[in-house]
Amino acid sequence: MDMWFYDEQTDGVKLGILVEKQLYSGVSDYQKIDIIQTKQYGKILVCDDDIVFTEKDEFIYREMMVHVPMAVHPNVRKVLVFGGGDGGIVRELLKYPELDQIDVVEQDRQLIEVCHEFFPRLSASLEDERVHVYPQDGLRFIRKISNEYDLIIVDSPNPYGISQEGYFTTEFYGSCYNALKEDGIMVNQHESPFYKDEANQCQYMHKRIIRTFPISKCYQACIPSYPSGHWLFGFASKKYHPLYDIQAHIWNERKINTRYYATRLHQGVFALPVYVEELLKDVE
Amino acid sequence: MDMWFYDEQTDGVKLGILVEKQLYSGVSDYQKIDIIQTKQYGKILVCDDDIVFTEKDEFIYREMMVHVPMAVHPNVRKVLVFGGGDGGIVRELLKYPELDQIDVVEQDRQLIEVCHEFFPRLSASLEDERVHVYPQDGLRFIRKISNEYDLIIVDSPNPYGISQEGYFTTEFYGSCYNALKEDGIMVNQHESPFYKDEANQCQYMHKRIIRTFPISKCYQACIPSYPSGHWLFGFASKKYHPLYDIQAHIWNERKINTRYYATRLHQGVFALPVYVEELLKDVE
Repeated sequence: MDMWFYDEQTDGVKLGILVEKQLYSGVSDYQKIDIIQTKQYGKILVCDDDIVFTEKDEFIYREMMVHVPMAVHPNVRKVLVFGGGDGGIVRELLKYPELDQIDVVEQDRQLIEVCHEFFPRLSASLEDERVHVYPQDGLRFIRKISNEYDLIIVDSPNPYGISQEGYFTTEFYGSCYNALKEDGIMVNQHESPFYKDEANQCQYMHKRIIRTFPISKCYQACIPSYPSGHWLFGFASKKYHPLYDIQAHIWNERKINTRYYATRLHQGVFALPVYVEELLKDVE
Repeated sequence: MDMWFYDEQTDGVKLGILVEKQLYSGVSDYQKIDIIQTKQYGKILVCDDDIVFTEKDEFIYREMMVHVPMAVHPNVRKVLVFGGGDGGIVRELLKYPELDQIDVVEQDRQLIEVCHEFFPRLSASLEDERVHVYPQDGLRFIRKISNEYDLIIVDSPNPYGISQEGYFTTEFYGSCYNALKEDGIMVNQHESPFYKDEANQCQYMHKRIIRTFPISKCYQACIPSYPSGHWLFGFASKKYHPLYDIQAHIWNERKINTRYYATRLHQGVFALPVYVEELLKDVE
């Protein structure tokens, strides 16, 4: 018997993936959580019927969220991660031994537990003594903090999920700005520029972030399991410019093991196609 | 009633696209040809059940095949296109008024006729007086030619199609080498590096091309309707280096209208992710 999982990427387009086995299905206080074993993508975490990550290409998303800002900021010590309950972002952060503290805000305890069971290699990173997991609402967490973090990573699903709405408001970005030190950087997942609905989300976010941060650029990666495969990230910064301030030589000397990111890619990931530049300029 | 077309991207992965209307279905001497009207991708040409191009994202593939070499080679006059029966590649080439001659080798007459009917705006380019269409076998066409073209564009489906096998042999690449002038460039579609089967095809081609040309580099684009969305192209050259010899200033002054390519992207598209570099190095 063939079982197929279909991820509805946008209205009228879906990615079908052959399922070998259903490993888990449950409903938490915040979302539906499914884990499937597949031939091409390994294990896949699906929340509310959308792919969150797959074992085969999760390294692309996580490396791009972490190493791009880490190659620019010269002295990151304290990091805040929103929504990193699976541990993937933290795994990449732990490649930098100089970090003193990594705070993870993930309100869905059940998601953390399920990932701990089915993705133990990712989840293990959350047990490092420098990592603190706060199972609470992100917006409430960030409101009271000021001038504390060098880097904030917003690793959250699309803006229209019920539990995630707060992560895409002007208020949230303003709170992140306040929580960052005077040379801090915020990185966020920024949706795909290709299909109309996702391109609208992309514009929606960009419009709010450029109002809040003096430096705000988008960069890109090819992530095959995500809608269209063409994925954007936001780089918002108080002081450092993503292109002029990259410390490529220093990053290269660290010999960090990666499978996607390298500093020779750094300029290129910020060089967006004409149609994507135009999409973003429309709201600038 | 909902009708879905499923493009089998690789074993166990398929892209589903909602069909509004089936416009054409026929069988030529070489392949099955279908054209469908879809909500998200406009009209789609499907040959032997695989997407050849869609109205929504065909500009990415065509622009990347044409403008990358045209921004490097300082004096292209005579171009040969393999498999450009739909006219898309030629449309981009005609943005360069200095071209004297464009030869198109497309053995499937029926494909040309069908495209003429359903994609008249693309197909119109084939009626330019500088364009000559040769409805014959590509390998046979190229064998007898030497030192004639400045640029050869190999716009052909994957290497395992029955009618296409000849386009992926060492003999074919050697014939292209001979048919090029002493400073000529060959560009070819180079498959996706992501899924295992396509990555193998990618290596297969790369191995043969690097044996034939002194300069051989791969470059990339995000093409959402193609398997994985992460697509590679080959740039094989007798003299000009794709990065050191780009004439960005001259190309920019031409004010060519594009939606994906710009010279500010040029370096970046050759900066491949670590895992792709490793894939290619394996056969170098």
